[in-house]
Amino acid sequence: MPSDPLSTTFAALADPTRRAILARLALGETSVTELAEPFDMSLPAISKHLKVLQRAGLIARGREAQWRPCRLEAAPLQDAADWIEHYRRFWEESLDRLDAYLKEVQAAKKPGPKKSRR
Amino acid sequence: MPSDPLSTTFAALADPTRRAILARLALGETSVTELAEPFDMSLPAISKHLKVLQRAGLIARGREAQWRPCRLEAAPLQDAADWIEHYRRFWEESLDRLDAYLKEVQAAKKPGPKKSRR
Repeated sequence: MPSDPLSTTFAALADPTRRAILARLALGETSVTELAEPFDMSLPAISKHLKVLQRAGLIARGREAQWRPCRLEAAPLQDAADWIEHYRRFWEESLDRLDAYLKEVQAAKKPGPKKSRR
Repeated sequence: MPSDPLSTTFAALADPTRRAILARLALGETSVTELAEPFDMSLPAISKHLKVLQRAGLIARGREAQWRPCRLEAAPLQDAADWIEHYRRFWEESLDRLDAYLKEVQAAKKPGPKKSRR
């Protein structure tokens, strides 16, 4: 189990079911039963995922006695986004390099260079 | 072990040592020995972390026979950033709510309401 908050956030996001749960909760709060419906999974299995998300502070449960609705709590995602943001220039650089390479390949494929002025 | 690429990326990021390795590689490529230096960890332990990062496509190893330098490969981080970005409005909304609440508290603390026009 990761101990620092950022690791806990990333670990919680490292599962497609948990990300799908967050995507569903982005549409509005809902009960656990309703949340479980689209998944081919037992209620206890879903509950386990919800516990991971709750421990990471990514969801909160309402206090209404009967149906304790789940809702999204996005605050931890901001720290995750801030961390990743530091690396933006690296993936943008590699996209630029790919772009330059593709342009080079395309230019090489053309029958001959076009002169723009006479 | 997560099977989809996005889960693999998030799982790789869910560890402070692995994030520190990526932060070091953002400064430039380096050997494993040099990379291991600042960590209070055995070389095999560092190698294990490097393997996780390499499987996630977040680092690549050079092919030079003697010292196979590690370098950052940021492309998978873009997908992670894109996923998180969908939730930006949620954390911004909660910051707005906090801001509004703090202003309210501050206004309530002031001796009396100021009237702007006579």
